[in-house]
Amino acid sequence: MTTDQLSATFAALSDPTRRAILARLASSEASVTELAEPFEMSMPAISKHLKVLERAGLIARGREAQWRPCRIEAGPLKDVADWVEHYRRFWDESFDRLDEYLKELKKKEKKHGHK
Amino acid sequence: MTTDQLSATFAALSDPTRRAILARLASSEASVTELAEPFEMSMPAISKHLKVLERAGLIARGREAQWRPCRIEAGPLKDVADWVEHYRRFWDESFDRLDEYLKELKKKEKKHGHK
Repeated sequence: MTTDQLSATFAALSDPTRRAILARLASSEASVTELAEPFEMSMPAISKHLKVLERAGLIARGREAQWRPCRIEAGPLKDVADWVEHYRRFWDESFDRLDEYLKELKKKEKKHGHK
Repeated sequence: MTTDQLSATFAALSDPTRRAILARLASSEASVTELAEPFEMSMPAISKHLKVLERAGLIARGREAQWRPCRIEAGPLKDVADWVEHYRRFWDESFDRLDEYLKELKKKEKKHGHK
């Protein structure tokens, strides 16, 4: 089954533990052991979550054999931000007013338009 | 199984058809029949997707018995925007520089601090 990138990102984010891992990694990169500690989870359980995050491109892991620190990758998070931005006018009144204003402006431009 | 709101939202968004339905509803509310048309999907298939979106609070449906138009609900989308905003500095360099500047400012304030 092939999944598009954005769907994989949203699926990876649909779990509170995985979001908590990202929140932890937002302050600094961390090893799997360091990540497992605060979550009181087994290493295999954490590893599974990390694999989902890694496959979605939300984190990357260092290449050192022993200590492979995890760090956040910006790309997919930016894609989420860009996606949701299209819906801003549904909750942002000031944005809505700007939108109205731009529409008004376009209408006027058409009216007095250069042909 | 109880799922937190944000997890349900992300799960609902992890499907390209459901995101396409939202994109369609962004221009205007629409009935199930109207929604089913462009997607070349059966009514039951569309209904299933709509149920997932509705359960996640991403859409609401009118209460008229015959024509129950679907419309976007802003709340969960705003929650996604608020969530992802915390990670902006990972992709936004200018934001990163502002962050650095504010840290610098805080440091200076501490140094010359009022006791």
